[in-house]
Amino acid sequence: MKITAYRVHDVRFPTAAAGDGSDAINRGDYSAAYVALSTDEGVTGAGFTFTNGRGNEIACAAIEALMHHVVGRSLEEFFGEPVTFWRSLTADVQLRWLGPEKGVIHMAAGAIVNAVWDLRAKAEGKPMWRLLAEMPSEELVRNIDFHHITDALTPEEALSLLEERRAGYAERLTVLERDGFPSYTTSVGWLGYPDEQVRALTQEAYAKGWRAMKMKVGGPIEDDVRRARLIREVIGDDALLMMDANQVWDVPEAIENMARLAEFRPYWIEEPTHADDVLGHAAIARAVSPVRVATGEVAANRVIFKQLLQANAIGVCQVDACRVGGVNEVLSIILLAAKFGVPICPHAGGVGLCEYVQHLSIFDYLRVGTSLEGRMVEYVDHLHEHFEDPITVVGGRYQLPVRPGYSVTLKPESIADYSFPDGPVWARN
Amino acid sequence: MKITAYRVHDVRFPTAAAGDGSDAINRGDYSAAYVALSTDEGVTGAGFTFTNGRGNEIACAAIEALMHHVVGRSLEEFFGEPVTFWRSLTADVQLRWLGPEKGVIHMAAGAIVNAVWDLRAKAEGKPMWRLLAEMPSEELVRNIDFHHITDALTPEEALSLLEERRAGYAERLTVLERDGFPSYTTSVGWLGYPDEQVRALTQEAYAKGWRAMKMKVGGPIEDDVRRARLIREVIGDDALLMMDANQVWDVPEAIENMARLAEFRPYWIEEPTHADDVLGHAAIARAVSPVRVATGEVAANRVIFKQLLQANAIGVCQVDACRVGGVNEVLSIILLAAKFGVPICPHAGGVGLCEYVQHLSIFDYLRVGTSLEGRMVEYVDHLHEHFEDPITVVGGRYQLPVRPGYSVTLKPESIADYSFPDGPVWARN
Repeated sequence: MKITAYRVHDVRFPTAAAGDGSDAINRGDYSAAYVALSTDEGVTGAGFTFTNGRGNEIACAAIEALMHHVVGRSLEEFFGEPVTFWRSLTADVQLRWLGPEKGVIHMAAGAIVNAVWDLRAKAEGKPMWRLLAEMPSEELVRNIDFHHITDALTPEEALSLLEERRAGYAERLTVLERDGFPSYTTSVGWLGYPDEQVRALTQEAYAKGWRAMKMKVGGPIEDDVRRARLIREVIGDDALLMMDANQVWDVPEAIENMARLAEFRPYWIEEPTHADDVLGHAAIARAVSPVRVATGEVAANRVIFKQLLQANAIGVCQVDACRVGGVNEVLSIILLAAKFGVPICPHAGGVGLCEYVQHLSIFDYLRVGTSLEGRMVEYVDHLHEHFEDPITVVGGRYQLPVRPGYSVTLKPESIADYSFPDGPVWARN
Repeated sequence: MKITAYRVHDVRFPTAAAGDGSDAINRGDYSAAYVALSTDEGVTGAGFTFTNGRGNEIACAAIEALMHHVVGRSLEEFFGEPVTFWRSLTADVQLRWLGPEKGVIHMAAGAIVNAVWDLRAKAEGKPMWRLLAEMPSEELVRNIDFHHITDALTPEEALSLLEERRAGYAERLTVLERDGFPSYTTSVGWLGYPDEQVRALTQEAYAKGWRAMKMKVGGPIEDDVRRARLIREVIGDDALLMMDANQVWDVPEAIENMARLAEFRPYWIEEPTHADDVLGHAAIARAVSPVRVATGEVAANRVIFKQLLQANAIGVCQVDACRVGGVNEVLSIILLAAKFGVPICPHAGGVGLCEYVQHLSIFDYLRVGTSLEGRMVEYVDHLHEHFEDPITVVGGRYQLPVRPGYSVTLKPESIADYSFPDGPVWARN
């Protein structure tokens, strides 16, 4: 099957005005730099990287700059030598300077890689989680670029781990088919919401079955304390309360503020400081234990995750589906986390991230992590209606996707309506 | 003085074909994503970020995306609240998602920040080094964003350090006026050159006065050994030989290969592994001592440098003028390095990087580092003819720039000839 053509779409949803998604440092229009692949067999593939509005055109330009590595080539060629394919996108001798393996150029590579995997899953008639979960261990390992991580995980170790953990696969699949995959909700505590809205949303989420909620912190500490108290009152002693500072604190400040917030028994503190600060996260982790440090949504690549794990800096690994270089790099991060015994709770929200990461967590449980303990997929109830195959969440649990592919194909009318700057939603603004 | 207009130019020089600049992972057409600022007082400013060819258009798009923070505002406003200005570019609530503080969007911010500083230096009639070197310590500190580095350096510490090191300023300036600033040359050992060319270039550089030379390594180790022997034979026992692996090795591989290359007594090993791998650099530094580990040309921001210093991972700090967020962030890195006692040897080469970094090293010597020991500016003899105020190197030493500004203004005819894709150099290809 040969990739014959593509289109890149700059799709933006006007979320900034509502205060949805507002946190200590971001306030955006949830957007997708979206690539649609066409093939000579009529199958189409879709992938995107998420952005926060302005700058989505830069991510689109980066996708365009990489497409000469893809058009005219075949799926068989890519999956015959997957690391060669992956490096064609992530180690282009000229484009890599723009990263390397970080920021816009790496996100663009991830969008394309995910679109190619979506093509394959659709060609095989399987949802992504099943494509990965039914893949021989050798093939999974062959899809990983171990460059720069062999000091923490070798191909041989990865293969052994995958083989050892095959036992119980059928039982785990039965559990998921029956119960779905656990989630937590971030829809209750954005900084842009007034207290009464936070209380109402928390009550509503609790009533719908969620027993894990995440609030944003990182504003004035007294506000954070007040909101934490409010949420803890609503959810009681047993539910989990997670906190997310979105990188706003310096290291000493994070330690100090978490001492104040400890009384509300947070399960984790997410992004307590700058995302690149491995040593800082490690210092915070030592200080706030037993509260876990969580990070990942803007961790640029497997080398950052490797170090966070080597330094015992994180107790929760929040890999994002399209910040790193797509499925291939996510596989390396899932295996690294397993080796270090750290659970995967992927970053989601935005637009389409829930659709993406459900597949990753399901695969992780079936083949790598093999436990649901401490595993949750983030859930935010925004913008699912724009996807052909949206998530289904019942009683706070993700139901197994059944349609072939990676679930991130946007409806044609959503692409048309929300295209920036010429779609009707934007043109009339 | 108000910034009234700007133009962004995609300028590329066709260097890939010649093998200039080829190393273990890069082979590019040296390029500048270049921004020219106009003001209501007729003064013009120039800044750029360097790229490796393809993708320069992405960096240009990123500059465009940030310019709404600059046009219509005044120099007095920017330098009245410099951190506010700097964060307007590096912490835009939507664009920061594309980094944060890394990759294309941060490089674009650096280009703009440098152009604003160039404006100011030209307005004051001073070369950049002199503008910085004559600045009160309080003002230098006020230009630094200490966010996320206070665990390693506080504003108070930075101020004390600057004040303590004022003594001897006049003597140091006399030294530079008399002798110039030391450099080393990277023009001898690109991987794209055959042995005979390496030998001839090494002999020529030695004859011109250089006593420090850098070779590229990271190809087959036997080739690296052969070329190291060849260069060491030409330069004798006393000259310095530096090696640069351009990130190609895994951590264990770096340690193993450096054991092979130790017999040629390298002064430093540059970029031995992935640029994000702080812990990896630290492990290599422990293993290869007394050979120093050097890195910085693709270190994304001050938080990466902070960690490299905290972890004793580097013995040489190779900050780049336009990879990080321009002058303001470079100041923080120079001060961090001084606190940890690590010399600054900035990354240069490419196009225009020598023009930029000479100012930084001169300022560092005059106000921060205060020693020439182990300090060298990289020198590569490419493409200087395109600048209005090119570097002058005599006997292997940079001569003090005298014209106002940051020395990176391209000649109008070079911009016209090398504009991509429509300039005559590219249109005829």
